[in-house]
Amino acid sequence: MAIKNAFYAQSGGVTAVINASAAGLLETARAHSDKIGKVYAGRNGIIGALTEDLIDTSAESTEAIRALRHTPSGAFGSCRYKLKSLEDNRREYERLIEVFKAHDIGYFFYNGGGDSADTCLKVSQLAGTLGYPIQAIHVPKTVDNDLPITDCCPGFGSVAKYIAVSMLEASFDVASMAKTSTKVFILEVMGRHAGWIAAAGGLASNEDHEVPIIILFPEVTFDQEKFLAKTDHYVKEYGYCTVVVSEGVKGTDGKFLSDQGLRDAFGHAQLGGVAPVIANIVKNGLGLKYHWGVADYLQRAARHIASGTDVEQAYAMGKAAVEYAIAGHNSVMPTIERISSSPYAWKTGMVELSKVANVEKMMPADFISEDGFGITGKCREYLSPLIEGEDYPPYKNGLPDYVRLKNVAVTKKLAEFKI
Amino acid sequence: MAIKNAFYAQSGGVTAVINASAAGLLETARAHSDKIGKVYAGRNGIIGALTEDLIDTSAESTEAIRALRHTPSGAFGSCRYKLKSLEDNRREYERLIEVFKAHDIGYFFYNGGGDSADTCLKVSQLAGTLGYPIQAIHVPKTVDNDLPITDCCPGFGSVAKYIAVSMLEASFDVASMAKTSTKVFILEVMGRHAGWIAAAGGLASNEDHEVPIIILFPEVTFDQEKFLAKTDHYVKEYGYCTVVVSEGVKGTDGKFLSDQGLRDAFGHAQLGGVAPVIANIVKNGLGLKYHWGVADYLQRAARHIASGTDVEQAYAMGKAAVEYAIAGHNSVMPTIERISSSPYAWKTGMVELSKVANVEKMMPADFISEDGFGITGKCREYLSPLIEGEDYPPYKNGLPDYVRLKNVAVTKKLAEFKI
Repeated sequence: MAIKNAFYAQSGGVTAVINASAAGLLETARAHSDKIGKVYAGRNGIIGALTEDLIDTSAESTEAIRALRHTPSGAFGSCRYKLKSLEDNRREYERLIEVFKAHDIGYFFYNGGGDSADTCLKVSQLAGTLGYPIQAIHVPKTVDNDLPITDCCPGFGSVAKYIAVSMLEASFDVASMAKTSTKVFILEVMGRHAGWIAAAGGLASNEDHEVPIIILFPEVTFDQEKFLAKTDHYVKEYGYCTVVVSEGVKGTDGKFLSDQGLRDAFGHAQLGGVAPVIANIVKNGLGLKYHWGVADYLQRAARHIASGTDVEQAYAMGKAAVEYAIAGHNSVMPTIERISSSPYAWKTGMVELSKVANVEKMMPADFISEDGFGITGKCREYLSPLIEGEDYPPYKNGLPDYVRLKNVAVTKKLAEFKI
Repeated sequence: MAIKNAFYAQSGGVTAVINASAAGLLETARAHSDKIGKVYAGRNGIIGALTEDLIDTSAESTEAIRALRHTPSGAFGSCRYKLKSLEDNRREYERLIEVFKAHDIGYFFYNGGGDSADTCLKVSQLAGTLGYPIQAIHVPKTVDNDLPITDCCPGFGSVAKYIAVSMLEASFDVASMAKTSTKVFILEVMGRHAGWIAAAGGLASNEDHEVPIIILFPEVTFDQEKFLAKTDHYVKEYGYCTVVVSEGVKGTDGKFLSDQGLRDAFGHAQLGGVAPVIANIVKNGLGLKYHWGVADYLQRAARHIASGTDVEQAYAMGKAAVEYAIAGHNSVMPTIERISSSPYAWKTGMVELSKVANVEKMMPADFISEDGFGITGKCREYLSPLIEGEDYPPYKNGLPDYVRLKNVAVTKKLAEFKI
C-alpha cells in the first residue's frame, strides 16, 4: 500500500474533548508513518478542504499534540457547513477531489455530529460517484448525545458532568439561602431536541445527597400547573428546589417556551432564554424568590471538569479512526459499545456511516419518570458511568494551560475557490 | 479564664469557601477545649440565635468537620437579616442576651460581609450597651471583595478563578466557531456595585493566551457607541470577541442596563439579565452572531474549581478568629495582609470592627484601563495571586463528595420568640 496523506477536520459545535479525539488521531497517525504520510487539518472544517486552507500538523511538536488531549474547543477551527447533494452542487465535490489530488490525500477523517456524518458519508462515496479513491471515516462528537448506534457520544459525558456538578453545587447554595431569600434556582442547559443534557442534572440527586430537582425535558410538553404544583410541593417539603430546564422546552402551543415575543420599552423585539421565563412563572405563580443561570458555552467548553470516561473515549475514537482506515475501511464510524454498566466496561466498535448520517437518537421514553419531571433508575444507570473520573488539565498561574497550535498553512497549489 | 461556649453563624450570600472558614474555626476551637466549651452554630445565621435554634457542632465527627473545608455553601444555613439599632429594636438585643445566657455563650463568631460586620459590631457592644460580657469576632466572607482594609476577602478568589477559567474556555470555544457561526460571547457575572468579579474575567487574556476580552464594569457608565466600536474592532482583528458584563452596569440614564422594562406578548413585565441586553445590542448594532450565558449561583458555588489561595485564606480566617477570641479580643475581624505580590506572600492581620462595618471597598480607578473596557497591569498584579492553586474536593461516583452535617438541634430552654 502506497503512503497517502490524510485530511482531518472538526465540524459543528465544539466540545471539551473534540481535541482529545484529534490527539488520538494524530498520535496514532504519527505512529503509522509507513501508511499515513502527513495529516493535513482543514482550517474551519470542510471549508478548509474546499478553499485549500490546510494546516500542516507535522509542524506541531509531540508535546503540543499531546496537550490537545486536555484542551477544549476545536484547535483547527470548526464550521457549520453542510455539503449539498452531488446533484445540487457537483462543483464542490469536484473541488474536493482537486484538493485531495493536489495534496495526495487518501484518507478523510471528519470529526462531528449528525450533519457532519452526512458530509463524511458523501465524501466516502466519491470513489463510486466521481472515481476518486478515498477512505472516509467519521469520528463521533456531539454534546447532544444524539448520534445513533454508538452507546454514547464523546463530548456528552463532560457536559453531563459539568451540569451534574453545577446542579449539585447550586443546590447546596440555594439550600443555605432558602430561609430568608432564594428558594428556587433555575439552570438553563443545551438540548434543543433531546433532553440528554437536562437529564444529567438529575444525577445531582442521589443516595448521598437527596436534592429536590425538577427536570424540564424538551420531550415533555410544559404543563405550567403541574410544574407549579411540583415546585410548591418541593419547597414545602425541603425548603427549596432546583430546576434544570432544556432550552428546547415547548408549551402546549408547540412553540419554544423561550419564544415569548419579548419587547423592550420601545417595542423592540428582545431575545431571552427559557430560564428567565421559568423564573417569571415561579414568581407569578408562587411568589417565591428565585435565581436563574444560563450555562450556554460554559457547559461544553468546561474542560477543567471534563469526565475522565469521556476524555478516554474521545481519544479512543480518534485512534480507532486511523486504525480502521489503515485496515482498509471506508464509510464507517468508530462507536462506543457498552459491555456493562456496573462495573462500567466498554469497547470500541464500528458502524456503517449510512446507518448514522441524519439519524437522531432520542431519549428512550423509559428514561423519564412518570410525572415527566425526573429520571428513572434506568436512565441513572445509563448516565452514571459517563461522568465518572476526573481528568484535570495542567495549570499555570492559576489557569488551565491549554495549548494553542501554530497552525502553519500548507502552501496552496490551486486557484482560489469561492464557497 | 472560665470555659465558655461559643456561637458561630454564617450570614449573607454563601460562597465556595465559607465552610472552609467554619472548618478552621471549629477545628481550632476543638483544639482549645480548655478555653472554649461547645460551639453552637446558629441555624440560618443570626436568626438561629434569636429563635434559639442552635446546632450542636460537637455532634459532628472529626471527618465531617474536616470535609467542610471542601464543601461549598453554608453548612448551617445562612440568612439575609440585619439587626436594627439598639434604639429601634431593643427587644432583639435583649433576646440575644437571654439566649447567650441560657447556653453559657461567651464568644460570638459571625461569618459574613459588610452587613454582617454591622450585626457583629452591634453584638460586640452588648457589654457596654446592656452589660452582657461577650467577645464578638467577625470572620470575613464575600464574593464581592468589597470589605475594606483586608487585602482581599475569602470567597472572592474562587469566584475570580471560576470566571477567569470560564472566560478562557468560552473564548477558545467561540474562536473555533467564529468562521461560520458565533462571533461574540457574552457572560454575565455578579457585582452590583463593584467590578471586582468582572475584572477577573480579564485574567483569561495573558501572555500565553491573548484573548480579545471586553469588560463592562459597574464603575463605568455604558457607552453603546464605544462598546460597539470596540467589539467591531476586535472581531475584525481576531475574528471573534468575548464580553464579561457585570450585573450592575448602568446606562447614561443611571438605570441598570438589565432594567429594560421588558414585556411579554401579553404585556406582562418580565425580568431579564444584562447579558441578553448586550447580546441584542451586538445583534442590532453589528449584525453579528452571538451566544450569552449567566453564571449566577454557579460562580459562587463552584467549589470544584476553588482557588487554592482562597481556601487557605478562608480556613486561616476561621482559625484566627478563635485565636483572637482566646487572646481576649472583642469587636475585631481577622484580615489578610499582602506582603508581596510576586512571589505572593501574605499574613493574617487584625482590624477594629468599627472600621469595617458598613464601609464598601470599591475598585481603585487605576485598576481599570483608560478606555474603560479592560484591566491594568496593577489590577492584574493584584488579582493574579488570588486565583493561584487548585484545591480539588474528593469525588465519589463522578461527583464531588460534599458533606452534609447532621445539624443536631440543641434542646431549647426558653420560650418561643417571634422575629
